[in-house]
Amino acid sequence: MDKEIFMKLLAAREFKAVRSILNVMNSVDIASTLEELEGKELVLAFRLIPKDKAADVFANMNNTMQSYLVEMFTEKELREILDELFLDDTVDMLEELPANLVTRILSVVDKDTRTQINAILNYPEDSAGSIMTTEYVSFKKNMTVAAAVAHIKETGIHKETIYTCYVLDSRRLIGIVSAKDLLTSDDNEHIEDIMETEIISVDTHTDKEDVAKTLSKYDLLAIPVLDADGLMVGIVTVDDAMDVMEDEATEDITKMAAMNPSEKSYFETSVWGHAKNRIVWLLVLMLSSTVTGSILTHYEAAFQAIPLLVSFIPMLMGTGGNCGSQSATLVIRGLALDEIHFSDIFRVMFKEFRISLIVGFILAAANGLRILIMYRNIQMALVISLSLVATIIISKTIGCLLPLGAKKIHLDPAIMAAPLISMLVDTCSVMVYFAIATRVFDL
Amino acid sequence: MDKEIFMKLLAAREFKAVRSILNVMNSVDIASTLEELEGKELVLAFRLIPKDKAADVFANMNNTMQSYLVEMFTEKELREILDELFLDDTVDMLEELPANLVTRILSVVDKDTRTQINAILNYPEDSAGSIMTTEYVSFKKNMTVAAAVAHIKETGIHKETIYTCYVLDSRRLIGIVSAKDLLTSDDNEHIEDIMETEIISVDTHTDKEDVAKTLSKYDLLAIPVLDADGLMVGIVTVDDAMDVMEDEATEDITKMAAMNPSEKSYFETSVWGHAKNRIVWLLVLMLSSTVTGSILTHYEAAFQAIPLLVSFIPMLMGTGGNCGSQSATLVIRGLALDEIHFSDIFRVMFKEFRISLIVGFILAAANGLRILIMYRNIQMALVISLSLVATIIISKTIGCLLPLGAKKIHLDPAIMAAPLISMLVDTCSVMVYFAIATRVFDL
Repeated sequence: MDKEIFMKLLAAREFKAVRSILNVMNSVDIASTLEELEGKELVLAFRLIPKDKAADVFANMNNTMQSYLVEMFTEKELREILDELFLDDTVDMLEELPANLVTRILSVVDKDTRTQINAILNYPEDSAGSIMTTEYVSFKKNMTVAAAVAHIKETGIHKETIYTCYVLDSRRLIGIVSAKDLLTSDDNEHIEDIMETEIISVDTHTDKEDVAKTLSKYDLLAIPVLDADGLMVGIVTVDDAMDVMEDEATEDITKMAAMNPSEKSYFETSVWGHAKNRIVWLLVLMLSSTVTGSILTHYEAAFQAIPLLVSFIPMLMGTGGNCGSQSATLVIRGLALDEIHFSDIFRVMFKEFRISLIVGFILAAANGLRILIMYRNIQMALVISLSLVATIIISKTIGCLLPLGAKKIHLDPAIMAAPLISMLVDTCSVMVYFAIATRVFDL
Repeated sequence: MDKEIFMKLLAAREFKAVRSILNVMNSVDIASTLEELEGKELVLAFRLIPKDKAADVFANMNNTMQSYLVEMFTEKELREILDELFLDDTVDMLEELPANLVTRILSVVDKDTRTQINAILNYPEDSAGSIMTTEYVSFKKNMTVAAAVAHIKETGIHKETIYTCYVLDSRRLIGIVSAKDLLTSDDNEHIEDIMETEIISVDTHTDKEDVAKTLSKYDLLAIPVLDADGLMVGIVTVDDAMDVMEDEATEDITKMAAMNPSEKSYFETSVWGHAKNRIVWLLVLMLSSTVTGSILTHYEAAFQAIPLLVSFIPMLMGTGGNCGSQSATLVIRGLALDEIHFSDIFRVMFKEFRISLIVGFILAAANGLRILIMYRNIQMALVISLSLVATIIISKTIGCLLPLGAKKIHLDPAIMAAPLISMLVDTCSVMVYFAIATRVFDL
């Protein structure tokens, strides 16, 4: 659907046409089309959405739009939307809304829902509890398949998923039945005879990243969440897990470029917000690079005597930084995907050492030759080649050790990425370079 | 399950205990436990796995293990496993196996399956066609719900998913029915009355990354794949989409650190493989950094006169590189998530410009003060502060323009990340620095 045409029809108050268009559009697309509207126009357009899609469109809207609608809705409209919203979407929204609107919402929902919302809101940020929904289908073990299907017919329509159902015995999870099992079993069979008892679950306090990983590892559509007493309190569904995976990758990538991650998208974050997320790391890294600067001052005599030495500094620092960040990146990603663990530290170091030798030799040869041809200076070729090999070995070692060390002391390995490693490697490479140069040139 | 205990029991030929353990373990965990076995031991252990789990364990194994087993299986064993494997898992495996084993497998499967496998293998790498499965449940529009459920009971057990079923009219997709619809509808209703006609689909040639994004955007469990004539040929399920998302994030992160991405994990890639993936970019970046070096040589007279100038080079180049890579990273990720498009180029530039001013002013002030206090040199403070602001504005502009430009000319924006940008920014910052210095100090 062309957004422009939609806007024109809305502006011309062609409500019948707008309604027909909304009728055939997907909820996700409606939400993104309405994104361009503001204020009263938004409320007007929202009221034209077919009733059965309204809640789904609302759930897919960004926070600014949701806030505005919550504020403008009549109490009846608000109650209708909230009744249809899945509980985890309601909680997601509440986490971002200003306090007065949170109060408005909590005053409209029934007491039971309010209790559940408050419980979820109380789980630590980024925990399984904070992203779960309490709306799942549960069976008793002595139900027949026919009774279970009847139970789904009755209650399933309001549940986030019916594809994985949970068999409970006084709130303790004793088995899992998939809709596939139900559809391919005989009507008279008992749930306890068809249920799967090999249960994969997470705790309310499990980090949401681990929840997503577990779901993906075992190819599940939903995973049960148990409280500290082992009682079942909710589920996390695969669509939420996908969002978590995407967010976590974004967070890691942002941290690896020396920024504080933002929950909002690029354009949603203000200029001040962006500046704030970036300035701290820039200040830290800038101060540490002044260390490299003072080391250079220390060798003033050397480059006063042989000014050519200065011209190789960018190449050495650059290559060192790049080599270090290559190793760091692979280790950080390996740690995130559970392909590398702290116990692999010596395997990783040995591997990186051998890679350093190959890479170092090739780069040293290329540079040595270039210097010999351009400057006919064997000593300089020797200094640069040696410095390169040493820099590459050091930088790859630092590059793999820092993220592993961070993991060990429970820091996020992603902050040990390119920028921090480049700074450290810069200092090392300058020191090694001038140490070698002063010796070879006998300065 | 403790791997060590398992290995000891297997080595002691305690088959009964091993079998009991395998009986209660999850297939994914069995596959990862067996990873440590080699040769005959692996085949031995595999034969102890309960029949109903064997294919699932096999699908979760890495390629080396699969190759070995395919080679060692009897024809009967091989046929049994292949019968149980989902078609997309079989194709995944075939793509990595040596030619003689591919022939062995194709000779064992029936003619129909062989045709389907060959069709999937012929789709371009990374396309929807190459990752889809052809095993889905299809209905006719005039079936009743009861007949549809009976159809699932009959054929569903061998399909990868039964949760999204497809209504076909001479292979043309006319509607979608979810298992939820089936379970919550009356037995006598007709499929065409309960089916959803708002269909979201992809083409066989759609990039797999876009397939995963579409699945995630619309919160689908499976997405239909249509051929060039609009006929339905297969589906991609959510678990495969999650794997694609993870792989794509890894690929982007690897490219952003100036490496060629590898399909294998860190440890699976050989030392030579790692060296090969890293060396090309290092050589390119090294050569470009010699440009910066020659610019420095050009200003020999300047740092001969004021050696202190050299000591600020690492700080300027480092800060420029970091600022540029911050902007580049956010733009690259924004492009990957479809939050930023090429048409936003001026919005992004203006935003980055304002951020540059804030960040530049703070860093310039911090440095200017430090230089005033440490060296009591107003001219030097002025040179560094001005150079910093200019470098930051230039680097943030380059940082946002390059990935957007790459996107426009259909290159992967991820290669326009930190390393390449640092190199470009290095050259610019050195030029700006000495241009300002020679003027202020009147050199």
